[in-house]
Amino acid sequence: MEKPPHLSSIISDYDYSVSADHIKLVRNALQSNDDQMVLDLISGLHAADVADIIEQLTQAQRVQFIDILRPDFDPEILIELDEYLRDEIVHLLPSKELASAITNLQSDDAVTVYDDLDHELQQRVLEDIPELDRQSLESSLDYDDESAGRLMLREMVVALDTWTVGQVIDSFKNSEEFPEDLSQVFIVDAKHCPIGSLPLSRLLQLPRTTKVVDVMEGDLKIVPVSMNREDLAFYFQQYTLPAVPVVEANNHLVGMVTASQMISIIQEETEKDLLGLGRVSEPTFTRPVIELSLNRLRWLVVTLINTLLGSTVIAHFEASIQKAVTLAILMPIVASMGGNSGMQAVTVTVRALAQRDLRKGQVLRAVSKEIGIAFINSFILAGLLSLIVTLWYEDAVLGLVLGGALMFNMVWSGLAGTLFPVALDRLGFDPAIGSGPLLTTTTDVLGFSIFLGLATIFLF
Amino acid sequence: MEKPPHLSSIISDYDYSVSADHIKLVRNALQSNDDQMVLDLISGLHAADVADIIEQLTQAQRVQFIDILRPDFDPEILIELDEYLRDEIVHLLPSKELASAITNLQSDDAVTVYDDLDHELQQRVLEDIPELDRQSLESSLDYDDESAGRLMLREMVVALDTWTVGQVIDSFKNSEEFPEDLSQVFIVDAKHCPIGSLPLSRLLQLPRTTKVVDVMEGDLKIVPVSMNREDLAFYFQQYTLPAVPVVEANNHLVGMVTASQMISIIQEETEKDLLGLGRVSEPTFTRPVIELSLNRLRWLVVTLINTLLGSTVIAHFEASIQKAVTLAILMPIVASMGGNSGMQAVTVTVRALAQRDLRKGQVLRAVSKEIGIAFINSFILAGLLSLIVTLWYEDAVLGLVLGGALMFNMVWSGLAGTLFPVALDRLGFDPAIGSGPLLTTTTDVLGFSIFLGLATIFLF
Repeated sequence: MEKPPHLSSIISDYDYSVSADHIKLVRNALQSNDDQMVLDLISGLHAADVADIIEQLTQAQRVQFIDILRPDFDPEILIELDEYLRDEIVHLLPSKELASAITNLQSDDAVTVYDDLDHELQQRVLEDIPELDRQSLESSLDYDDESAGRLMLREMVVALDTWTVGQVIDSFKNSEEFPEDLSQVFIVDAKHCPIGSLPLSRLLQLPRTTKVVDVMEGDLKIVPVSMNREDLAFYFQQYTLPAVPVVEANNHLVGMVTASQMISIIQEETEKDLLGLGRVSEPTFTRPVIELSLNRLRWLVVTLINTLLGSTVIAHFEASIQKAVTLAILMPIVASMGGNSGMQAVTVTVRALAQRDLRKGQVLRAVSKEIGIAFINSFILAGLLSLIVTLWYEDAVLGLVLGGALMFNMVWSGLAGTLFPVALDRLGFDPAIGSGPLLTTTTDVLGFSIFLGLATIFLF
Repeated sequence: MEKPPHLSSIISDYDYSVSADHIKLVRNALQSNDDQMVLDLISGLHAADVADIIEQLTQAQRVQFIDILRPDFDPEILIELDEYLRDEIVHLLPSKELASAITNLQSDDAVTVYDDLDHELQQRVLEDIPELDRQSLESSLDYDDESAGRLMLREMVVALDTWTVGQVIDSFKNSEEFPEDLSQVFIVDAKHCPIGSLPLSRLLQLPRTTKVVDVMEGDLKIVPVSMNREDLAFYFQQYTLPAVPVVEANNHLVGMVTASQMISIIQEETEKDLLGLGRVSEPTFTRPVIELSLNRLRWLVVTLINTLLGSTVIAHFEASIQKAVTLAILMPIVASMGGNSGMQAVTVTVRALAQRDLRKGQVLRAVSKEIGIAFINSFILAGLLSLIVTLWYEDAVLGLVLGGALMFNMVWSGLAGTLFPVALDRLGFDPAIGSGPLLTTTTDVLGFSIFLGLATIFLF
């Protein structure tokens, strides 16, 4: 048993669980080959913190570090590492040790680690995994990546609907360890279909002779093995669930997903949208620069094509610009404001889609709202801008042309910023990734064409 | 007890819990004043789904709907509504009914509803809330908004370190209902300081005579009442916790926060960053258009100032553009590519800050990584662009000037895209909101200046 932590240490430590200084001490200990010091420095640390330390080491240091940890390796560390480093670390463990690490993990974590191994390593490891665990591993891998079946925990408590509270309590004694966050018992009928749940806290309050069917909560939210992570995330958010039972196509109960499992999933799903809108799709800092570069380069090439299209539009109006350079000075405003206000609409729409706030009947309402917003804002900004330009260049027609082009482009961007994400979503694409480039291409091309076009008509 | 749902209905329904058709039926029933039909249509629905329906009604329909629901009003509905509508709905309930709704909610939810009431309504409601609940409400409100103290649940099971397993189990019998997701008992010493935890599932496995100190998990992650939501979110993500004990400054245990509570918080925190980067700060669709407009207008005014600054830079090079309109055609490319690649860096940095991946010692590493990425990508893109322009205009010097300006602006944007968010964060501002406008102002101004400046030097 560890000594109780004191509040002074909590308050200073909670912020960053492993400080930069702490990591420096580990590095120094590794450099001076002081194995005992390394072990002292990580003793009592949570696996997530040890993983954080590993992510801060050089490759050579990692080899040395794992070698020191090996005799007493905490398999949870593998779960906390990002995929890229996990792949490196599993190759530093002998296959027997890796197999025992996988066997000791909770079922969902075992699947995650095993699934990421290359085929050859999977085969080697499988030999050293006990038959029962092997079967459960392999059947989990039959489910789609990112599905509830892949995610679910198999360690749960299932009670028959004919049981009493006493029988349920006794069934605990015969089992091994359960997930720390177990809070529900699921009740199944004779066909092993879930029909209710009972919180452990209720179980402790009820007389042993009570029949579970008489006290269970029958209003169960049930999830099929095929449900994807996104829908699962919405489900947990919508209903604030402690855990959901997961069923096969025949409605047989095969596992459960808990709220603590969903925490990282929900964060990842929202983050995926955030990164997509920012035109990056890599989640971590730890990958090599060249990989990160290529990942982002794709989006920059799309942006380059987008801007080159804008340039060809401007080139079309070369003669007008020659006559009035002022047009060149003012044209970026129209394109830029359209792009920015459109991205506001895209951002709101992408989140509304994720939150299931845009059911089929509601798109029209959202579009009209966005167009309303665009009208109000573009009217105010166009008025302001017309005034500035009229005063600056003493040319009211120029001011009106600029204001008109701005309004047109912003209203278009409100419409497109809603419809592009919705259309991409309906067509099965990720709206967070595709909408931005699509939108800004149109706001650039339209912005330049309308402003320079109107100017050519009204000014010369 | 409800009848067990069948899989066919689950699979078709889980996607959108309340279909647009269902909402239409409710609207029709309201229109034809068929109260019984309305009640039938919402019977068995989760409070979150009823809240979704309310959000889809007009104001007049909402008044009618609440009137029908009132005799049997589920207080959970208040929690699921967004703040704006909740404020409307609480005014439709007589203060006695509102008081009873608040009393029947879980302690964390009661605080949320009560806190959002206007002062006058708070006073009226308080009279009808039982003394004990009133005290707990008022003491929760003493803690900062967005702090662990405000969020925490007071319904938990606390055991003394001198107790046996049997005593803990017996203590359940004397209590009322517990949160559905209760999975841990917290163990405190004589001073009421938490020193360990025991999962309920372990409690059910152990002999009654076992002393809790001998079997509890002593490695507790403890949270002070003052911890803010963001740190709490990080804490739950980092350590995959089922629940954390919350302590006052004297280290006394006063409440707990559970994983299912954190699900919506983590989603909200990540979403706040996402909306901030998209330059919108409103979270919902349900507010009136004018409010949404003004909210976004602030950011568009900032963008307008930003683009006007860019225009003054261009105006400075009027003479050069007059000589070669080509410059006007190409200049948006440099500004736009700098802005886009910079926003990639901002997006990654904002997330790294939220994930505590940028400790003080690691900023240099992140900056050098971003500059590395910017070098590689700008080199490739500048090469490509130089080639295109050289062929298009048959002018190698123009191609080189454009490529050089692009490289410079992109490398700057990698540097600024990392340093701006880090600096804003250190200064106590929200990096997700401020970084974008700051960055694009510099990439516009620099982009235009360098390209037009270099062109003026080398081309004429």
